[in-house]
Amino acid sequence: MSFDPPHAAGADAIAAAVDAVRAQTPLVHCLTNSVVQEITANALLAAGAAPAMIPDPGEAAAFAAVASGVLVNLGTLTTTQLAAQRAAVAAAGEAGVPWVLDPVAIGALELRTDAAREFAAASPAAIRGNASEITALAGLGAGGRGVDTTTSVEDAADSARELAARSGAVVAVSGPRDLILAPGTSPSAAPGGADTTGLWVESGHPLLQQVVGTGCALGALVAAYLSAARTVGVDDLHAVAAAHAHAGAAGSRAGTVASGPGSFAVAWLDALADLDGAAVVDAVELAVAHPQEER
Amino acid sequence: MSFDPPHAAGADAIAAAVDAVRAQTPLVHCLTNSVVQEITANALLAAGAAPAMIPDPGEAAAFAAVASGVLVNLGTLTTTQLAAQRAAVAAAGEAGVPWVLDPVAIGALELRTDAAREFAAASPAAIRGNASEITALAGLGAGGRGVDTTTSVEDAADSARELAARSGAVVAVSGPRDLILAPGTSPSAAPGGADTTGLWVESGHPLLQQVVGTGCALGALVAAYLSAARTVGVDDLHAVAAAHAHAGAAGSRAGTVASGPGSFAVAWLDALADLDGAAVVDAVELAVAHPQEER
Amino acid sequence: MSFDPPHAAGADAIAAAVDAVRAQTPLVHCLTNSVVQEITANALLAAGAAPAMIPDPGEAAAFAAVASGVLVNLGTLTTTQLAAQRAAVAAAGEAGVPWVLDPVAIGALELRTDAAREFAAASPAAIRGNASEITALAGLGAGGRGVDTTTSVEDAADSARELAARSGAVVAVSGPRDLILAPGTSPSAAPGGADTTGLWVESGHPLLQQVVGTGCALGALVAAYLSAARTVGVDDLHAVAAAHAHAGAAGSRAGTVASGPGSFAVAWLDALADLDGAAVVDAVELAVAHPQEER
Repeated sequence: MSFDPPHAAGADAIAAAVDAVRAQTPLVHCLTNSVVQEITANALLAAGAAPAMIPDPGEAAAFAAVASGVLVNLGTLTTTQLAAQRAAVAAAGEAGVPWVLDPVAIGALELRTDAAREFAAASPAAIRGNASEITALAGLGAGGRGVDTTTSVEDAADSARELAARSGAVVAVSGPRDLILAPGTSPSAAPGGADTTGLWVESGHPLLQQVVGTGCALGALVAAYLSAARTVGVDDLHAVAAAHAHAGAAGSRAGTVASGPGSFAVAWLDALADLDGAAVVDAVELAVAHPQEER
Repeated sequence: MSFDPPHAAGADAIAAAVDAVRAQTPLVHCLTNSVVQEITANALLAAGAAPAMIPDPGEAAAFAAVASGVLVNLGTLTTTQLAAQRAAVAAAGEAGVPWVLDPVAIGALELRTDAAREFAAASPAAIRGNASEITALAGLGAGGRGVDTTTSVEDAADSARELAARSGAVVAVSGPRDLILAPGTSPSAAPGGADTTGLWVESGHPLLQQVVGTGCALGALVAAYLSAARTVGVDDLHAVAAAHAHAGAAGSRAGTVASGPGSFAVAWLDALADLDGAAVVDAVELAVAHPQEER
Repeated sequence: MSFDPPHAAGADAIAAAVDAVRAQTPLVHCLTNSVVQEITANALLAAGAAPAMIPDPGEAAAFAAVASGVLVNLGTLTTTQLAAQRAAVAAAGEAGVPWVLDPVAIGALELRTDAAREFAAASPAAIRGNASEITALAGLGAGGRGVDTTTSVEDAADSARELAARSGAVVAVSGPRDLILAPGTSPSAAPGGADTTGLWVESGHPLLQQVVGTGCALGALVAAYLSAARTVGVDDLHAVAAAHAHAGAAGSRAGTVASGPGSFAVAWLDALADLDGAAVVDAVELAVAHPQEER
């Protein structure tokens, strides 16, 4: 795997997306797991977006149609929540609202694995997961052990490309380096004219893994970024990369002041609120992802 | 709108209510939204009260009858939760336990809007919301966009007065300045003999809007304050104002030490725990609200 | 009640258990109350374990069978959650996975009280509660007022011994001093050859009572500790004591830096992550509990 010199046009697009979220306050309807609702809402607020969690199926559909973006996270799926998610996905699809699938801990558990397959076929704008989850969803692997991951991001690259081609979604594999792949098989036209089918975003801090919900909150940020970026002409690939860059840059910043996972979580929210687009781009390493180099 | 010189008898009543909560540890049964349960419980504990969240309908009713106060928050309403809230409201009413309605994000969403109308007619001791929510509940407006607000507190004053008259509840409109209106149409006899139909409480900090649950936690504090204040002869109007003053004063204090929304939330809880009645009154601006000046 | 000189073999066992959790990252399936899910997950991560919350009954059973430990906490019990807990308990029992019962606020409320009696008879490895809850479960008392406690740990000792004998579980009564009692009636063979039927663990800080979920998170830590300790030859009595010692030592440490309950919660997680086995043992007072002295 090679790292290109900074992808200048891509960096500009990422900075623009960060600032667009702050300027527009996109409203993200989160049908997410019950453990992480508070940090998800606080991360959205810190990044300049606004959260809403509306669990009743009837209300969920009505709200999805007027929200800026929707998050469907399977972490604590129940049959009741699945009904609300189905209603919201249908309404978002009809209204042209971008929605994000986070297939938490799929692979062995039946309800969520079936739901993930169903939702992956329902035209999400993005799918975000760790390497095990993305591998499982692509049908190439055996799934993970709960919410942590036993597959490297690099090992999940082929699965992720296959999933992106099949689903038409931007696929993001989160990890020490995040891999973000364009939807479909054709190169995405990045601002500045660069043809890009994928990006690596290197940022973050190991303590992100010791605070529950930083990954799930990232899924909500992806929905916010998709919505805001589209209005300023940034493509979905760079919008998703920007969400990862913002969350990762905030993690890097938080790592410099934290005494442990408790103070890290606090500092992460403070940094999410403080960083603008230029600061985010300064704090992360970006590289174009080349399919032929991923083996 | 004019601001009166500090309302001395009212300030004394507010200080007495703050100290009564700390002295009595009222137990507040919160049937609240799932996003904010933790900060709600922690805010109650910090203010000197005790939280309980009992979602099963049978248990919710039994517990409401022995609790000091009950909170009904519609933020993540489901049909299951509605059953528990109905049971708790009925039991609280029968037992004379004061209960608070927080009509989160009503207006366009059907389940919660219908529930809010039903509960507003069921004799809550107080109704607390932002300007959009109170306007929507009074039937004069079109509701808000999720949980933030697009109407000013001042613009909601007429609706709030109408709602207070109709419901018999103290109505609180939370915002940069909070407007607290006495139940019914007749002036409330404040301690010291002042006739007051409403109070303005000015306090807080803009970061309160960037931390999820500070408003919802305030609804729980209102329930705690109603219970404790009644035992020391402070009327409901001043009890509700005291809850707003305590939360707002803690926000002002937190704003002086916070680096962003993460550290603000932490400092807000620390300040809630540290401030006594005298310190709360020192930190806020109080004024009598005159109906004729609100246009 | 006397305090013995430090119980040297017990202290070694406790330190070994703390370090075993960090080395093994046991995965704890928490079927817990909705208020405390986030702090529970973060406490597990800080102690070196991994959390999962899987609420669907079918998934809950499948996951319990492969988890390292299971927590059943009745704090926000619903009939839906009860079904998941029953399925998980059955699967854990069949798979030999240790599970922990936390009978939150039982006594007067019917659904949870019935569930606690049922689960206490289903061979939990440990039962953890406050003095009121343990007394209520043993059938000797009238239960508590919500989640706080009106009975002293010392007063609950007889009930706790009876419950340990009847249930075959280690019974832990959490309080200013925690009482941990061996399962059954025969003395537990502690490492080093000491016969011990119970231990007192003195540690902690009053602010632990002002942060919601520190007790419930301790129940999850107990499940993690049971799993890891068994693999290094530490008995269940000392595993449960180690979980209490770790949580308490972190509380003592946090108390030295906190400005109030908000900063205390942050510092508690930081300290949980920082303390190793030797530091935990240094920070707590241990004593053998003698039944004849408990009256």
